[in-house]
Order: sequence, then structure tokens, then C-alpha cells
Amino acid sequence: MNEFELISILRASLPTNASVQVGAGDDCAVIDLGLADQFILFKTDAVVEGIHFTKATPAEKIGRKALARCLSDIAAMAGTPKAALVTIALPHTFDGEFIQAVYRGINTLAAEHDTAIVGGETTTNPERMLISVALLGTVAKDKCLLRSGAKAGDAVFVTGTLGGSGAGKHLDFEPRLTEARWLAQHFSIHSMIDLSDGLAGDLPHILKASGVGAEIFSDAIPIDRTARMQAKAETSAKSPLLAALTDGEDFELLFTLASKYAVPLLDAWKEKFSALPLSCIGKITPTPGLRIRNKKGVQPVTAHGYTHFA
Amino acid sequence: MNEFELISILRASLPTNASVQVGAGDDCAVIDLGLADQFILFKTDAVVEGIHFTKATPAEKIGRKALARCLSDIAAMAGTPKAALVTIALPHTFDGEFIQAVYRGINTLAAEHDTAIVGGETTTNPERMLISVALLGTVAKDKCLLRSGAKAGDAVFVTGTLGGSGAGKHLDFEPRLTEARWLAQHFSIHSMIDLSDGLAGDLPHILKASGVGAEIFSDAIPIDRTARMQAKAETSAKSPLLAALTDGEDFELLFTLASKYAVPLLDAWKEKFSALPLSCIGKITPTPGLRIRNKKGVQPVTAHGYTHFA
Repeated sequence: MNEFELISILRASLPTNASVQVGAGDDCAVIDLGLADQFILFKTDAVVEGIHFTKATPAEKIGRKALARCLSDIAAMAGTPKAALVTIALPHTFDGEFIQAVYRGINTLAAEHDTAIVGGETTTNPERMLISVALLGTVAKDKCLLRSGAKAGDAVFVTGTLGGSGAGKHLDFEPRLTEARWLAQHFSIHSMIDLSDGLAGDLPHILKASGVGAEIFSDAIPIDRTARMQAKAETSAKSPLLAALTDGEDFELLFTLASKYAVPLLDAWKEKFSALPLSCIGKITPTPGLRIRNKKGVQPVTAHGYTHFA
Repeated sequence: MNEFELISILRASLPTNASVQVGAGDDCAVIDLGLADQFILFKTDAVVEGIHFTKATPAEKIGRKALARCLSDIAAMAGTPKAALVTIALPHTFDGEFIQAVYRGINTLAAEHDTAIVGGETTTNPERMLISVALLGTVAKDKCLLRSGAKAGDAVFVTGTLGGSGAGKHLDFEPRLTEARWLAQHFSIHSMIDLSDGLAGDLPHILKASGVGAEIFSDAIPIDRTARMQAKAETSAKSPLLAALTDGEDFELLFTLASKYAVPLLDAWKEKFSALPLSCIGKITPTPGLRIRNKKGVQPVTAHGYTHFA
């Protein structure tokens, strides 16, 4: 049994109740607790030493990242974060100064997004540090963006630039909360997700949830400068395009809308968010699967990349 | 800096916002998201292998305990659980069958309390398993019970029996959700907490939050049979009374109300919950601190117990 089979089995047997609008399988759970015009968004995310950060990562950046990842999931639903709980599990050898610095990273980012930190706990994990953040948010019922709404003919957009995040951006990225809410307010966005596992890993989540496929254009992928520099510096590095597809931890928004709104969106975006690139990278197709096109032809894309064009 | 000093420093600098009714420091955070008559309750709790369970603990019981601890915190506010997210961090060597069994334990208990499991994640913690549960609930605004309402003259009550939980009850306890809501509905309860750290550890939380003290009566403490048996079986074991005060993980309700309602409460309780003992164990005093009284006199109680009566 692989991980995806296991998750599929687990999901099939989770108890539900009348309050659940969206359970496991989107960026956040969506709960209706009786508010007239708002759903509750609910999300947890954990970062683990040796996987999401190292012993050398500054404590403030660890805390910032732990919260930022959850905020990015609220952004993916076009929501507004409200309150978070922080669980820090760590060896007995960590000192109070370190934990205070972790909290400074959390608190500073939380304050920037008017998010309250309402408690949590410190517990023991003798061998390594682990931080789990639980986040509560809200979203207007008619503006909640899911993975499942993509339609054949949609244009596929991505914010920012992709690839090379491991060099630093994975600790410093800005959750696209403002941008996501603006998108939901001003355009009829059909589907949205945040890029945590890379374009090649996350676009398929939209495709599967929506029962569609996509073709992306290799020249249109906004490759981060860092990914290009890494490829130049080291011959064993991924190609810049492969890095943009598979590095992960970009935490940019990936979304689709009817292609007739593509140009109006690009114009309005430039006006509103001139510092942040927005790229149309492809289109949604009725044929399932993710494919990439360049001048030489079309190739299927897997979570690990694609076969090199001959 | 000890743990309590650190927590006090951390709490002082947490960001807040207009939605926060009660932040860090009670059994749950209490959030007002605009519902006319209800607050949102928000809680996380983690269990760690080697601390809260062992390698030998059956997987279903690990899952059950992880959720039950959080449910007990919702009970302590007289709330109703609605939806939970489950984070399981574990070594690569665990198999799918094991995780499915953990989820069976979670799901069965969740279904008993009409609580939806709306997602979460599995992540890696190479050396040991850790489960963190985040739980969302609701409570009627005028029935939300805090730690801070105890008043001098109140009678102090505890449900069930205390001590010896490590022999098995810590895995099988019933979160007192029904009982807590019934109490809040039918009596003017001044303060409530669930007993996770033992009577000697948790009653002081009520006392500190309320700015009062308490005197408990040694003969009135409902000592669990297991604690008595352990004391008989092993001469090095804690005395039954000390076990009841300090073993912890009882997950019973501890609450206070005006002493004039003590007898009506005991009568109504017997009628409603005949299978679960309810004991009046002492009284709230204007003098700060926790003290225990027996025929020989009065002694101060610390989190670790008390000096033996001469």
C-alpha cells in the first residue's frame, strides 16, 4: 500500500456531520457553524527539524515558516485568518531564549495578518523539534475557492516565480492572502490551490478534483532567478524548468478562470499588484492528465517532472 | 527561567484581535466570529510516544486517547465538539495497517460525539510517533464555563474517581461532555476545569485564575480503586490519597458553585447520572493557596502533594 492508497482508504471512513461543507482533500476544511454569510476555514500544518528546517535555521524563521504555511492554505481558499494555536514539541535541551525567538517569528507574521495566537502548548519530542500550527479563518460563502471548480477552456495562472525555494524563500515567502481575496472579489475564479509541492505536484490536485486535464507551456512558466543560478552554478543541478516544476515550497497561488477573462485579469493585476508577477501558464483541457508543451511537442508531466524533449 | 516563567513571558506578548474572548490560559480558546448566541471553542493537544503512550499501546487506543484529551477540554468549557484535524508524525517504518488502526480509534470516538474528522496530515518524525489533534467546538455564550469564576464560599466538586489512571484509564476515559453541558444548563457553575495534571496540579489553575484559595477534605477525595490496589500491592507506591492528588490523567470535571446549591446538585445528579460518582471535596476560601484538611489539621498542597500529617 503506498501513501496515496492509504490516504484514500483513510478519507473514505472519516466521520462527518451536518456542519462539514468540505472535509479532507482541499487546502482547508470548510465548516458551516451557522454564520449567515461566512464559512469557517480550519487547517493544521506541521514543520519538522531535518525536513522543513535544519538545526542551523534561525529560530524566528522557523516560527515564521510554521505559521506562514498555514496562512498560505487560508489564502488558497480566499479566506481571512483569525486565530491560531501553536504546538511546539522539542528536546529538553532547548532553552527559553530559543522558544521566545520562535514565538517572535510567529507573532510578527500573525500581527501582520491580524491573526491572534490564542494558545497551544509546548511538549516533549526528545530527538528533534516539531511545530504544528492549527489555524482558524473565515471566508464569504460565495467567495470560497476550492480545487474542484476548474473547467475545460479555463486559463491557468500562477503568481510570483517558481523553483529554487530551498535557497531561502521557503523561510521568507509571503502568504498571498491579500491577492487571493482580491481575485475572489473581482473575478470569477473557478479553482485555486497554493503551491507547496511544486507545480507538477499541485496542479494535478486541481485536475483530479475537477475531473479535467491541463496543458502548460514550457516558455510561460515563471522560473525563479535562484533556480536559474543554481542550474548554472552546478552541472548536477536540476534544469531551471524542472526546478520550477518540482522543487516545491513556492507558496504561490495557482488558479484557473474562464479564458475570456485572462486579459482583463492581467491588466487589472498589473494595476493592483505591480510588484508581483502573474503568469498565464496554460489551459485546462477535457482530456485528463497534465502535459507540458514546447516547440518540439507535448510530454506528460508527473510529480517528479517529465521526460526530456527529444 | 523555569517552564512557568517562560509560559508567562510568552503569553504576555501573543498578538490578539477583536474576535478573541479568551486566549491562552483556559482549557480552550474562546473566539467570537459573529454567531448570535454561540462562541467558537478552539483547542489542540498532542500525545507523544514514550510519554503519553508506549510502543506496546494498541494503535486504536493511541488514536482514541489523542482525540479524547481534546474532547475533555471542550467538556471543561461545557461545549459541544464539531470538527477535528489530526496530525500524525511517525517513523517511516510504521505501516498502513497501524495508521488505519489509529484512525479507527479516533473515528469511533469522534462518531460517538458527532464530531467530524475533516482532514489533517501524516508527516515524518523519525524516532517516535506523535499525534496532535486540533478541535473546533461551540458553546452557548451564556453557558461557557471558565477557570476564572470561582468565588469564596463555593463548594468544590469532582466527578468520578481519582488516581491510578496510568494502569489503563488514561487510554479509556470518557470525556465528560454530556455531564458538563448538563451542569451548565441546570446550575450556575462558577468555574470548571478538566483534571489532566491531577487535583493538586489543576485546582490551583482555578484558584489562580479566580484569585481565591481552597481547602479540600482528605476524607472526601474520591480515590479510585486502582490507586488503593496499587498502594496495597507495592510498598513503594504512593499512598492512595497522594495518587488521587497527583497521578494525573483522570480527565474528570472539577468545578465550583455556590455552596447553597450543593445538596440540590447532588440530588439532581444522582437522578441523572446514577453510574458516575459526584463528590463535594471542599470549599473555596478568600485566602489564596490550596490546603488539605484531615482530623489532625490542615496542610498546604503543592503540585507534587503535601507534607504528611504528623
